[in-house]
Amino acid sequence: MQPHSFVVLLFELSLVLTAAKLGGLGARKLRLPVVLGELFAGVVLGNIGLLGTDLFEIIEHDPSIEVLAELGVILLMFEVGVESTVPELMRVGRSALLVALLGVAAPFLLGFFTVRTLFPGFSFWLDIFIGATLCATSVGISARVLKDIGKVKSVEGRTILGAAIVDDVLGLVILAVVVALIGTAADPSQVESPGMASEITVIILKAFGFLVVGIVLGLLFSKPLYRWAAKVELSGMLLTLSLTLCFTFSYLAHKFGLAPIVGAFSAGLILGPDHSKIFMQQEEQTLERLLVPLSTLFVPIFFLHMGMQVDLKALFSFEAITVGIVLSIAAVVGKMASAGGILPGKDGPDRWAVAIGMVPRGEVGLIFAGLGAQMEVGGEPLLSPALYAAVIMMVFITTAMTPPLLLKRLRKIKS
Amino acid sequence: MQPHSFVVLLFELSLVLTAAKLGGLGARKLRLPVVLGELFAGVVLGNIGLLGTDLFEIIEHDPSIEVLAELGVILLMFEVGVESTVPELMRVGRSALLVALLGVAAPFLLGFFTVRTLFPGFSFWLDIFIGATLCATSVGISARVLKDIGKVKSVEGRTILGAAIVDDVLGLVILAVVVALIGTAADPSQVESPGMASEITVIILKAFGFLVVGIVLGLLFSKPLYRWAAKVELSGMLLTLSLTLCFTFSYLAHKFGLAPIVGAFSAGLILGPDHSKIFMQQEEQTLERLLVPLSTLFVPIFFLHMGMQVDLKALFSFEAITVGIVLSIAAVVGKMASAGGILPGKDGPDRWAVAIGMVPRGEVGLIFAGLGAQMEVGGEPLLSPALYAAVIMMVFITTAMTPPLLLKRLRKIKS
Repeated sequence: MQPHSFVVLLFELSLVLTAAKLGGLGARKLRLPVVLGELFAGVVLGNIGLLGTDLFEIIEHDPSIEVLAELGVILLMFEVGVESTVPELMRVGRSALLVALLGVAAPFLLGFFTVRTLFPGFSFWLDIFIGATLCATSVGISARVLKDIGKVKSVEGRTILGAAIVDDVLGLVILAVVVALIGTAADPSQVESPGMASEITVIILKAFGFLVVGIVLGLLFSKPLYRWAAKVELSGMLLTLSLTLCFTFSYLAHKFGLAPIVGAFSAGLILGPDHSKIFMQQEEQTLERLLVPLSTLFVPIFFLHMGMQVDLKALFSFEAITVGIVLSIAAVVGKMASAGGILPGKDGPDRWAVAIGMVPRGEVGLIFAGLGAQMEVGGEPLLSPALYAAVIMMVFITTAMTPPLLLKRLRKIKS
Repeated sequence: MQPHSFVVLLFELSLVLTAAKLGGLGARKLRLPVVLGELFAGVVLGNIGLLGTDLFEIIEHDPSIEVLAELGVILLMFEVGVESTVPELMRVGRSALLVALLGVAAPFLLGFFTVRTLFPGFSFWLDIFIGATLCATSVGISARVLKDIGKVKSVEGRTILGAAIVDDVLGLVILAVVVALIGTAADPSQVESPGMASEITVIILKAFGFLVVGIVLGLLFSKPLYRWAAKVELSGMLLTLSLTLCFTFSYLAHKFGLAPIVGAFSAGLILGPDHSKIFMQQEEQTLERLLVPLSTLFVPIFFLHMGMQVDLKALFSFEAITVGIVLSIAAVVGKMASAGGILPGKDGPDRWAVAIGMVPRGEVGLIFAGLGAQMEVGGEPLLSPALYAAVIMMVFITTAMTPPLLLKRLRKIKS
């Protein structure tokens, strides 16, 4: 007797969970990472309309599924954060910073010049914009692979995660700059404001300020808070407190211009080994164990939903496919060259593992693409539907290639 | 960089989870059941607008919170089902059937005649309708109390749960009859169809048919399915399979005219002790343990959201309060008299515990009330806003009084 849409959601959830597990099983058979199977299951579900059935179209556009998917990636990054600690992350700080800085600059330049050379018909602003879509790493998929094989705490894992945080801040800056620049181009009267540099400084200070202040305050106050919460002996108190911390940090991260997943990861960072002891005493389980059922439900929904966003039909165009391939190559080469080139050889992390871990592009690329499709320069949309499809293709290729390569590399350095 | 509404949800979730735990702590201090504290926290959040702030109004109307709340009650009833088994439930079958039948008839008659006597201004159809709103027990709150103190498997717990299933089928029948009758009244040309009796038979057969066939098929096929799922060794496979079963049964229950929670409970019934062994081998935890983190997150959202539905402002009317009190008394006396009067004394369940457990009215009462506010008889809405508020008041009083009384009674019979 519940509202109709909720009942439909129950059906959708059954279908999504089944499809995710079938995809996972298929990937396992082919010795590929499970998450790749979930992604492909999503592509299949999202494009089954091409076979003439619209049975599953509802899932793609159901806001509830999207909400559960977003909760999935938040919980995933929180889990990964719980497995990490601040000192461990600080120890790889220099490498992570370098990887992030170069890993943002190189794909941008490579993308810009490649497109400029190969597609002379594109405008200058379009080239800038396409370069920008290649910058930001989407850490979700690498985080999942690291978690699935227990490598979050490895030096490679920590470098990837640390670089991803810096990367997110840089992504913010680039978004602000590009939007301002293209705003100037679209409306020449609005000359490039001389305050640009100070604006960028504010963005960076706000973002890093939030991270530093949030994590320091969290480290100071969380232990007494958890000891109190353990004492009241209300069932589920500690887990609820942890989830509240995760959701609050995710929300605040967004308020400070960062991605919510960066907030979720930071919240997890705060809850180090000391908290595990409190959990063991009270719940006879660590927080990590308690989070497993939640991520079992939510996380596959995220990757399946991500796969569903790929519109195969939009890729049925010569321009989309050519540009898509060029972008994918620039994206991969740009990230890999920067991470592979700069990391110290012997003592530091394995440079190839880090390089591969930084390859996937995701939400940020999609947000750029969406923005580009809306923006107009000289009365035309900056990004045509075919170019939009090309960006999506790049996102999917970089995302789908990462899990098998990363898994292979991490297994190799273990042995 | 996620969509705005999702980020707001993160804030709302932090708030809802905190409020639920504060409510729970408050209730604990007053030696009341935790769930009552969650309900009251919801009433406070839902009516804080009376203090002139609209900060929390978004939560009340956020469809995402509603979806998570609905998932909460589904998961709660699934958990309770997992703790129960079919043979245990069959053993109390006769008592449960009697409790349900009389427990539906008595409040209806009592409600009808009380309103007829005390408020002669009401129309005949209104009296019928008000009687009907008093029929159906809402099992969620009693199930939560039983679960919180580990009494699901007690003979009283089983009687309440068994009666609740029958009750749901009866609620369906009454809804169909009343809507048909009032349809006849609103449009006299549409004479009471001679097929009414056969229509009711179809409703009953469909609902019971689904339950019997679903549970029998489930019992037959679930063990081989779970053995297979354990063998593939994909992480989270068993839990995902269980949740899929839960969601599918909930969806199908709705398709067969039952409440989704009845489907969730049935799915849980199928997963008996044999499955626990498979879970222990594979995941080193029982299904019950794995469900705890999920219910820790979702279930309080349900009870808080339920509390938020109470609109205190609508109760600021003499008519609403008088009728509300009369309805509450009729609702309580009707259910308690029937359960208390018929159960065998010594060997059977404690008649008072069962009687109290059947008192709460919930969603079904609210659905009736919503329907009544929409239906028109002679151009006027059947249920005026004040009467609508009175029904809500009855729902809240019967819901809020149950946890402390049930807890007290169950503790008494234990000692």
